[in-house]
Amino acid sequence: MSLPILGITLGDPFGTGPEITVKALSDKCVYERSRPLVIGDSAALEYAIEVQKQLGNKELKLNSINDVSAAKFEYGTIDVFDMNLISRSDFPEITTPPKPLGIGSTAKGGEAAFNYVVKAIELAVEKKVDATVTNAISKEAINMAGHHYSGHTEIYADYTKTPKYTMMLAHDDLRVVHVSTHVSLREACDRVKKQRVLDVIRIANMGCKQIGIENPKIAVAGLNPHCGENGMFGREEIEEIQPAIDEALKEGINIPDRRPTPPDTVFSKALGGWYDIVVAMYHDQGHIPLKVKGFVYNKAEGHWDAVAGVNITLGIPIIRASVDHGTGFDLSGSGLCNEISLVNAMDYAIRMANAKAK
Amino acid sequence: MSLPILGITLGDPFGTGPEITVKALSDKCVYERSRPLVIGDSAALEYAIEVQKQLGNKELKLNSINDVSAAKFEYGTIDVFDMNLISRSDFPEITTPPKPLGIGSTAKGGEAAFNYVVKAIELAVEKKVDATVTNAISKEAINMAGHHYSGHTEIYADYTKTPKYTMMLAHDDLRVVHVSTHVSLREACDRVKKQRVLDVIRIANMGCKQIGIENPKIAVAGLNPHCGENGMFGREEIEEIQPAIDEALKEGINIPDRRPTPPDTVFSKALGGWYDIVVAMYHDQGHIPLKVKGFVYNKAEGHWDAVAGVNITLGIPIIRASVDHGTGFDLSGSGLCNEISLVNAMDYAIRMANAKAK
Repeated sequence: MSLPILGITLGDPFGTGPEITVKALSDKCVYERSRPLVIGDSAALEYAIEVQKQLGNKELKLNSINDVSAAKFEYGTIDVFDMNLISRSDFPEITTPPKPLGIGSTAKGGEAAFNYVVKAIELAVEKKVDATVTNAISKEAINMAGHHYSGHTEIYADYTKTPKYTMMLAHDDLRVVHVSTHVSLREACDRVKKQRVLDVIRIANMGCKQIGIENPKIAVAGLNPHCGENGMFGREEIEEIQPAIDEALKEGINIPDRRPTPPDTVFSKALGGWYDIVVAMYHDQGHIPLKVKGFVYNKAEGHWDAVAGVNITLGIPIIRASVDHGTGFDLSGSGLCNEISLVNAMDYAIRMANAKAK
Repeated sequence: MSLPILGITLGDPFGTGPEITVKALSDKCVYERSRPLVIGDSAALEYAIEVQKQLGNKELKLNSINDVSAAKFEYGTIDVFDMNLISRSDFPEITTPPKPLGIGSTAKGGEAAFNYVVKAIELAVEKKVDATVTNAISKEAINMAGHHYSGHTEIYADYTKTPKYTMMLAHDDLRVVHVSTHVSLREACDRVKKQRVLDVIRIANMGCKQIGIENPKIAVAGLNPHCGENGMFGREEIEEIQPAIDEALKEGINIPDRRPTPPDTVFSKALGGWYDIVVAMYHDQGHIPLKVKGFVYNKAEGHWDAVAGVNITLGIPIIRASVDHGTGFDLSGSGLCNEISLVNAMDYAIRMANAKAK
């Protein structure tokens, strides 16, 4: 089996995407497991490489191409599918030490970022890349450029003509899909309905299979504390969640607990390897444990050591894994941004591409 | 300043209390920071000491007393305020290797455990001990013995005639107080009212001062995802939480964010030292991050490495810190139970006693 080709979009060229991409591709291991191709602009990568050089880090070379077949896929040289939308003069001089760019959301950056994404989708649909990995874009910037999308997921859905999709969030082996996300907590309670819970259990099962887990172990969290203690405080577990679990079990889906799992222990157990994925009933039920694990602040040095986490779009016909953080306009250009979320996203994309190729 | 005397109740004598107490008091450091006194039964401690001896661990001695003034407070000897409610014949022979007792909830164990707690409260009220630390009791067992309480907190409230109290949960420096706990998630939404939120902010502030933090930094979590994004999904932040925060700020309480903090990042920030305590809006909002940090499962060896966490009762006139786990009847007697939660509870009790003595 040949190594999967990853199409990595640069994200907003004035965000942290270029520098974390350069940092991620400075690790030789990446080339032992995949063939990475950046979809973006040489100028933005050149700037990021210069910054790393000034910080005393390894100086990578660039191979600017406009056809995937021209890629070298050799460690030490970044292959970039060059869209030529940004030039070196869009960036300031590099100071000593390098300072944040301070550019923020611009129509130029948004236009470029949008086009990188569209090109990545196109290459994936044409099977010229095996999976796509996305850096962060600015919703504000792409809208300033006249592209009215709320984010990557909608662009992917639109350009691949996919009506039904959902996202899986992951931090290492902790994976979560949600019954609802951006609705009030009261509405989230209303949305815990048998059919939707069953749909999400099925999506969780399929999502795990897409990353190569053969018989995924699924936990379905309760909605109420202690799962309502047999109806003493809350009946959704009895009336909606259990019937969905029973139906899923009948379909052969592997839910080891065979009932809703108490929300306050399900994530500790998932982290301990009891389950491959957790079906969360609402946004924060899933996001709190993911961010407690993935966002690590270094108190002594006053910065975030790790902002890890991967966002995977399930239901679309191509593979997409994404960083789980924003553009970081306040830090980009400093050379100090943390690449771990991108590394994790690349890892997930590789696993999904390998599972698909089997 | 003399070292604080800790009155440590043994918990259910057939639960894990005796063995984790012996393990916790096998650490010399405890005696450098406090004067520990166990309130329980010599027979239960003797059994636990024999089990540790058989496992090749340090063999501690016992000093059985019925007056605090007879305590030696010397490392290597456990001082026990002996209630004489249990005898060695209530325990089975010790096997090789030691097996779990398999006794479970009994009226005898419940009667003993209840009396240890009442004695601890009495000694604290009489100022013969500076703080109390409690091991787990079985609600079923104390009810079998005719003592109709749902747990420690109610016994403490009753015996100290305290009408208003609340619990603070802590794992290391992550501390949480809750606006509501054992109610359905729908009812939890209903309970997010300005007056209650304000009360809990005040309790959080007082609680931190009780453990010696001078100007506590308090975060108030939102109820809805992203704090409702300016009312787009949920208005509790605007109508109830912000007015409570404004009132608290007027009282001089230190809330650095001056507004509700998004629930999915507030705990990562608290762990990073941004806040001393988080006001959580509902049970699982606070319990999920505490247990993700405190409950650590060892996948390779198939057991929980750490079940850490401390439960502190605020509002009562004496100091009480408790383990944050149950009696562990399925494991007790094996000698393999983890003492970290008790060690953490003792640490909190010491801090609170020192802060009170200032």
